[in-house]
Amino acid sequence: MALIVQKFGGTSLSDPERILNVAERISAEKMKGNDCVVVVSAMGKTTDQLISLAKDVSNQVNKREMDMLLSTGEQVTIALLSMALSQNGWEAASFTGWQAGIITEPVHGNARILNIHTEKIREQLNKGKIVIVAGFQGVTEDGEITTLGRGGSDTTAVALSTALKASKCDIYTDVTGVYTTDPRHVKEAQKLAAISYDEMLELAHLGAGVLHPRAVEFAKNHNVTLEVRSSIEKERGTIIKEEVTMEQNLVVRGVAFEDEITRVTVFGLPNCLTSLSTIFSTLAKNNIDVDIIIQSMTSKEITDISFSIKNDTLKETLNVLEKNKDLLKYDHIESETGLAKVSIVGSGMVSNPGVAAEMFTVLSNNGIEIRMVSTSEIKISTVVNQQQMLPAVNALHKAFKLSAIPIRS
Amino acid sequence: MALIVQKFGGTSLSDPERILNVAERISAEKMKGNDCVVVVSAMGKTTDQLISLAKDVSNQVNKREMDMLLSTGEQVTIALLSMALSQNGWEAASFTGWQAGIITEPVHGNARILNIHTEKIREQLNKGKIVIVAGFQGVTEDGEITTLGRGGSDTTAVALSTALKASKCDIYTDVTGVYTTDPRHVKEAQKLAAISYDEMLELAHLGAGVLHPRAVEFAKNHNVTLEVRSSIEKERGTIIKEEVTMEQNLVVRGVAFEDEITRVTVFGLPNCLTSLSTIFSTLAKNNIDVDIIIQSMTSKEITDISFSIKNDTLKETLNVLEKNKDLLKYDHIESETGLAKVSIVGSGMVSNPGVAAEMFTVLSNNGIEIRMVSTSEIKISTVVNQQQMLPAVNALHKAFKLSAIPIRS
Repeated sequence: MALIVQKFGGTSLSDPERILNVAERISAEKMKGNDCVVVVSAMGKTTDQLISLAKDVSNQVNKREMDMLLSTGEQVTIALLSMALSQNGWEAASFTGWQAGIITEPVHGNARILNIHTEKIREQLNKGKIVIVAGFQGVTEDGEITTLGRGGSDTTAVALSTALKASKCDIYTDVTGVYTTDPRHVKEAQKLAAISYDEMLELAHLGAGVLHPRAVEFAKNHNVTLEVRSSIEKERGTIIKEEVTMEQNLVVRGVAFEDEITRVTVFGLPNCLTSLSTIFSTLAKNNIDVDIIIQSMTSKEITDISFSIKNDTLKETLNVLEKNKDLLKYDHIESETGLAKVSIVGSGMVSNPGVAAEMFTVLSNNGIEIRMVSTSEIKISTVVNQQQMLPAVNALHKAFKLSAIPIRS
Repeated sequence: MALIVQKFGGTSLSDPERILNVAERISAEKMKGNDCVVVVSAMGKTTDQLISLAKDVSNQVNKREMDMLLSTGEQVTIALLSMALSQNGWEAASFTGWQAGIITEPVHGNARILNIHTEKIREQLNKGKIVIVAGFQGVTEDGEITTLGRGGSDTTAVALSTALKASKCDIYTDVTGVYTTDPRHVKEAQKLAAISYDEMLELAHLGAGVLHPRAVEFAKNHNVTLEVRSSIEKERGTIIKEEVTMEQNLVVRGVAFEDEITRVTVFGLPNCLTSLSTIFSTLAKNNIDVDIIIQSMTSKEITDISFSIKNDTLKETLNVLEKNKDLLKYDHIESETGLAKVSIVGSGMVSNPGVAAEMFTVLSNNGIEIRMVSTSEIKISTVVNQQQMLPAVNALHKAFKLSAIPIRS
C-alpha cells in the first residue's frame, strides 16, 4: 500500500459539480488500495473575490488580516470535498493548515514552511481515512495564521509529500501536463512525458505557470517525484524528477515566453566592486522583481547596467532609482517598454555547444531583432519586441524539432 | 476606563458599507476611552450560502465538516472589520475562536463553551488594540473546530464579557430593542425599556429571535447586564438585567409566537417511572429539540404523551421513535403539522392568579381553538392552528394593554 499526495487547484474545484468530480478521482486512487492525502486550493475565483472585499473596506494593506481573510478560501474547499467523499462512501477528515501542523516562519503573505507535525494526519490515515489538507496556509509557533503566497498550495503538497515520505505527488490542474511551449499560442506544442526539476524550474520562472517554482525547488531538494496531470482527462501527465532520459537526444525541451517586459538601463555608474550590489539591493528592498541583468563596461571608470522588469513596476522602479541617485551615483536612466522574453530550456545544452548560436540564427533568419541576451547552463533567454514574440516562439519550436516528439499518454 | 464587549450580527455586517458603519460605531466607543472587544457573526446570508453549497455536494450531514465550513463565515468578517478599523486609524487584531482561546465541549454543531483562555486578548488590549473575535465558534481541547449553534455569537459575546469582567455587553442588531411582540406583524408593538433575564429567556425560547436563549441564560448566571440596540439608529435599546421595575404594574410583558410547529402524540406507553425519561432521553440523544411536553394518563397501566417539535424535524423524530419501538414499548404514534405557538410572558403572573383564564377567554372570544397548553411561573403557552396565530397575537396584545406602555428612548 502506497501513500499518494494529490493536489487539486482552484479551477478543478470551482463548483459543487467539479468538487464531486475531484472526489471521484480521489476515490479511484483509494480503490487501488492507496492511502491518500489531498491538498486543495480555494474554489475558483474565491481568492480574488476576497481580495476585492478587502479593497472595499480599506485602501491600506494589512498583511496579517489579509492572511486571516484569504485562508478561509481553502477551508471552505476542504470541508466541501470531505463531505463529497463521505457522499461517495469514504471516510474523510479535513484539516486547516494549523490543524495539519504546518508550521511556517512568522511572515505574512509569503511565509516559508519550517516544519510539519504529521501526527494528526498519520492518526487519521491509520484509521483508513482520506485526509484533506488546506493548501496555501500555515501557522506560526505563536498561533498566527500565515499564507505561503500565490501558488502556495503546490508547495504545501510537496512539503507534505516529503514529511509523510509519500511515494508520489500528483499535481492535478486544468492542463494535461507540461508542454514544449504554450499550446494556447502554438498549435504544434507537444506534451512532454518527463522533465527534470531544473528544466521545470526554468520553465516555471519563465511563465509556464503550471507549477509554483518554490514547489519545484522543494521537490528537487527532497527528491519528490511529481506528476502534473489533468483533473478532468484520464490520460497520463508529465513526470518531473531528477534524471530524465532525453527523448530523441533532444537538446531543447521547451520554449517559454512572457510579454509585458520593460528594459531599464542605468548609464554611467562608477565602476567599483559595490556598484552592482548597491543597485540591486536597493531595488530588492523596495520589492522590485528584476529578471535579466546585463552589465557592459564602457570604460575603466564607469559602467552601464541593463535589467528587465515587468511593465507595471516601471514607475516604482524609476522612483526608487531617482530617490537613491546620491547613493548610486549614476549619470542617467533610459527605459524601453513593449518588449517580451523568449527562452529555450533544456538540460542537453550543457553538453551541446552552439545551441545559443543556433537560436540567434533562427531568430535572425526570421527577421527578429534581439535586444537583450542572458544565458544559464540549461536556458538561453532573449528579449525581443513584443509583436515578434509569437513568431519567435513558433520559429524556435519548429527549428528545435519540438513539434515532432513522440508522446506517450 | 471601562471594558465594553460589543456584538454585531450578520445583518449589520452584510456588505462593505455596513462593515464600515460598524467600524464607526466601534470608533465612537473607543473615543470615549473604553477598551473594546468586538464579537461578530458571518456577513449577511453567508451561513445560508455555505449550507447550500454543502447540500450541493452531499445529502448526508457531516457535522464535523459542517463546523469546518461554517466557521469560515465569521473569519471573513473579523478580517474585514479589522481592516476597516485600520482604515479609520485604529489598531485592531482579529482572532478566530481557537485563537481567542474559546474552548468548547467536543460536540459538533451545538457545542457549549467550557472555558476561555483570555491571555491573547488581554495582551492585545494592553497594547491599546481593539480586539475582534469570531463569534459562534470555538475549539476542543484536541484542536477540533466546533460551532455553538445558530445565534451562538450572542453566547460568545456574553461568555467573553464574563471571562474579561466587562462592564457592559452591547448586542447590536437590526432591531432597536425588545418589543412587546413582533413589530413586523403587530403595528401596536412597543419597545421595552428593560426586561428581566427570565422574561427575556421565555421570549427568546418562544421565537422573539433577538437574542439567543443560551446567551441570556449565560448572562443571568454570571449577572452580565446586556443592552439590545440597533447598529444603525443611535437611540437607546432595551436593557436586560436581573430586577426590572414593572411598568404600570403590567402583568404581561410580551406576546411571543412561533409557527411551523408539529404536535406528536405517542399512545399506549407503559405507565412506569422510566417511560418519560426513556422517550425524551432517546430524542435528546438524537439531537431532536422538543418544546412543549404534555402527559395525560388514560389508565393505570398505560399513558399517552404529546410534545411539540419544529415541522422540519418531524421525519427524523418519527424515524427515531420507530427505531426504538422495542425499547419504548408504545402502541402507536400520531402527528399533526400546521400549528403555531402563541405565548404571553411576564414576571407579574406569579402574583396574579387568573391570567391563564383571561388568556383562554380572549382566545375563545376570538374564535381561536387551543390545541395544547403549557404553563410556567412567568409564561403561558398555547398551541393553535397556524392560520389563527396572528389574530391570536393581536387579540392578546390588545387585551393585556401592551400597546399603551409609555416608552423612554
